[in-house]
Amino acid sequence: MRPFAIDPTLEKDTIPVAEIGLCRLLLMNDSRFPWLILVPQRVGVTELHDLSPLDQTMLTFETVTVSDNLKRLTGCHKINVAALGNQVAQLHMHVIARFTGDVTWPNPVWGSGTAVPYETGAAEQFIADFKAGFQDGS
Amino acid sequence: MRPFAIDPTLEKDTIPVAEIGLCRLLLMNDSRFPWLILVPQRVGVTELHDLSPLDQTMLTFETVTVSDNLKRLTGCHKINVAALGNQVAQLHMHVIARFTGDVTWPNPVWGSGTAVPYETGAAEQFIADFKAGFQDGS
Repeated sequence: MRPFAIDPTLEKDTIPVAEIGLCRLLLMNDSRFPWLILVPQRVGVTELHDLSPLDQTMLTFETVTVSDNLKRLTGCHKINVAALGNQVAQLHMHVIARFTGDVTWPNPVWGSGTAVPYETGAAEQFIADFKAGFQDGS
Repeated sequence: MRPFAIDPTLEKDTIPVAEIGLCRLLLMNDSRFPWLILVPQRVGVTELHDLSPLDQTMLTFETVTVSDNLKRLTGCHKINVAALGNQVAQLHMHVIARFTGDVTWPNPVWGSGTAVPYETGAAEQFIADFKAGFQDGS
């Protein structure tokens, strides 16, 4: 069986954060939204219901842990959680911090405008802050 | 404590399907997309991470069961699963059958155009077919 690899489009659009168990955790390189993506390290899976029940539970646990930490870190109004896969087939879970004043509120972020990459050092700082909260909290 | 009730906006936009354990299952009254919504019967919860771990696992189980059944029933290309809550705060999980030829593919369905209500009898037929699959399958 071929080894697990992140889809090339996801890889191009994101910055690696960590391996957190089942998933690789990625930061979307779009400074308009604090936006994390979890990718279960399973080959050829596109739907949540194609994961084993144990993997479904693991993914849920990792998703809510990321969600809770992201909300505490950012003080956002709402977390958006979604597995869409219309553009990238590889199963991946979006966890996005939304603010009532952000550029596309209250609409979804996908397909809205153009990504604004982080400035030098900013993504690394966000990742460091996120990881610090991950260790302290939850 | 006040009893659980479906948010009035969700109630207005949907047709009741069933109680399936933790959740009420609703059909969005928009014939453009086969689109189900699960609402955990918990008062005052807006984020996935605010549910208890047991409820998170139940919601995951019910979501993937609905997802699997909806994909088998419709033969769709992809299922979209999402908990957004930007417009309706009450925690609710969308499970939507997407086709490569549908009116908003590959973009998300939210905020796209205007809902087209089911014609007389069509929603009831869809619900009957969905329930039949629910009992036979998974």
